[in-house]
Amino acid sequence: MSDLPIRDELRGVEPYGAPQLDVPVCLNVNENPFPPSERLVADAARAVADAVRGLNRYPDREATRLRERLAAYLEREAGVSLDAGQVWAANGSNEVMLQILQAFGGPGRTALSFAPTYSMYPEYARDTSTHWVAARRDDDFGIDEDVALKAVAEHRPTVTLIASPNNPTGTAVPLGLVSALHEASDGVVVVDEAYAEFRRDGVPSALSLLDTHPRLIVTRTMSKAFAFAGARLGYVAASREIIDVLRVVRLPYHLSAVTQAVAVVALEHAVELQGRVAQLRDERDALAAWLREQGFEVAESDANFVLFGRFADRHAVWQGLLDHGVLIRETGPDGWLRVSVGTPEETTAFKVALVDVVKEQR
Amino acid sequence: MSDLPIRDELRGVEPYGAPQLDVPVCLNVNENPFPPSERLVADAARAVADAVRGLNRYPDREATRLRERLAAYLEREAGVSLDAGQVWAANGSNEVMLQILQAFGGPGRTALSFAPTYSMYPEYARDTSTHWVAARRDDDFGIDEDVALKAVAEHRPTVTLIASPNNPTGTAVPLGLVSALHEASDGVVVVDEAYAEFRRDGVPSALSLLDTHPRLIVTRTMSKAFAFAGARLGYVAASREIIDVLRVVRLPYHLSAVTQAVAVVALEHAVELQGRVAQLRDERDALAAWLREQGFEVAESDANFVLFGRFADRHAVWQGLLDHGVLIRETGPDGWLRVSVGTPEETTAFKVALVDVVKEQR
Repeated sequence: MSDLPIRDELRGVEPYGAPQLDVPVCLNVNENPFPPSERLVADAARAVADAVRGLNRYPDREATRLRERLAAYLEREAGVSLDAGQVWAANGSNEVMLQILQAFGGPGRTALSFAPTYSMYPEYARDTSTHWVAARRDDDFGIDEDVALKAVAEHRPTVTLIASPNNPTGTAVPLGLVSALHEASDGVVVVDEAYAEFRRDGVPSALSLLDTHPRLIVTRTMSKAFAFAGARLGYVAASREIIDVLRVVRLPYHLSAVTQAVAVVALEHAVELQGRVAQLRDERDALAAWLREQGFEVAESDANFVLFGRFADRHAVWQGLLDHGVLIRETGPDGWLRVSVGTPEETTAFKVALVDVVKEQR
Repeated sequence: MSDLPIRDELRGVEPYGAPQLDVPVCLNVNENPFPPSERLVADAARAVADAVRGLNRYPDREATRLRERLAAYLEREAGVSLDAGQVWAANGSNEVMLQILQAFGGPGRTALSFAPTYSMYPEYARDTSTHWVAARRDDDFGIDEDVALKAVAEHRPTVTLIASPNNPTGTAVPLGLVSALHEASDGVVVVDEAYAEFRRDGVPSALSLLDTHPRLIVTRTMSKAFAFAGARLGYVAASREIIDVLRVVRLPYHLSAVTQAVAVVALEHAVELQGRVAQLRDERDALAAWLREQGFEVAESDANFVLFGRFADRHAVWQGLLDHGVLIRETGPDGWLRVSVGTPEETTAFKVALVDVVKEQR
């Protein structure tokens, strides 16, 4: 590899990603444990057959029908008024974020976030030659407003990235903080709401700020609440002006006709899928309570996972669980581990294994 | 838009893309005019139903099965020996090219190509902050070796991009030129073979050079020969070392489980699809001959389109054809127009319209 003219910052770097292991219980990448229903499968097969008949032609570059359905879904989910021109979609939140950094980041510019947070953010920055700055979160994984405003004043980011609920901690930030950051900055403020549907009652979505915050971008995904991780559909709500900028940097025909078709089908099944979300929220709260009862520290979670600790040797606990057939994620601040909320059976398997592992390691 | 912190080079830029118009005869974006067979449609629907059952999980990040099938296809198509580790796939050639520029281009680096050529190339460069240089092709749209070597010596590109067959001219370059550019440069040499399956007998593929040219990258697409433009599947053949670099810059899970499934199905139908390619090659040669008989200049084409001219006012001819319900592409060097090879019926409609338009404009 050394003879190849690769960019310096890529030398020796390993491809990003959690291990893809064949393990009975996978609670490592915050997937939704409930597969799509057979009704959804049948509808998707029909829709794809229709799409395949026209696959010799390029797809609708604007994904208009899909964006209309996404806008309608967000209206129902968050009680806001949106149309297709305020929504944009791409192959996963990853591509959405890359497009945002391509449009508003770049050489000589800075992206700011608050760590510990999603480990892909610095990669988006690297891939767009954007300078990356991570200010610190509090000990409880919230963002202190003074710290945040000081970071904005010091680094003058053109992109400020806030995951809420945050990955890997599960922490949601108050909207007042989002407003303050928007006010303090000339850049875009991106609230990454990949896990928003799992937020607890009373926790608002930043979508409600869009009308009054012209440089606000809210990102969402169908990977989690829609149980559609394999379909790769991330999306954005923002002003028409911001969407039009993303349309300039998107690769033409970035979203396949098949992806558009299956995503529309999943949106038609939103009510069924949201029922599962309610169940997962309850499971999450029960799991967090159980972990506390066992004496663990547990971060407050508005997502479909729980960060818990602390362990003197978290890797040993992670490996012990894996030896019991339960794969979770060794990520986030040292001493902590992250477990996704699975089916009741998966959660039970995790609990049994954890009790064993902790006992073994004493 | 002026208040938004968008990158300077994006201000006032319109999204890339040919007009998507609802017209009886679309010969403007080099699509394959033959839709997938009902057998392929049925197989795809079955494969997608299977994939959808697992869509709550992330897809195979390495797309191993698909890459094995692509390698086997290239072996048959070009008579070379390849395995999955030498092949990479992404959402269209667009994403493949972006990844190549992300890995080997970037700030302070130069990408070189030879114009007139594919109009997306400067956009890949812009989106990765890579300096863009276009040397000139000959009057017959070939690449003069002295001109090319001089450009390499002057600009020292880390990426040299050669479309062969070239879009929009249809011109294939000799492998000796590819070798000479590889020899002269320390960078990667990318031969974009999006239209390779349409090349005339005796025209070789640069795939045959891979064994002996470690910095060579050959890109292909399923959009054209596979009649799969709507599915968005571009791919790469190169050394394992180069593929491993692309794996570092790819967004994790960039290729959906559904895309992987439908692409595998199309590859299983390769023989059927290649029969259509043979028909399109014959249609192309007949169309080029007819245009010459009408007194037009016609560029030699190894692709599924023909560049013809010259017109004092090409826009008037393009508009005249559109008024007759035939959409072609106003692209490439001034005075020329590009028409895709359609079904026999579409080609007839184009010929009739062209004769009329030329008559009207005399």
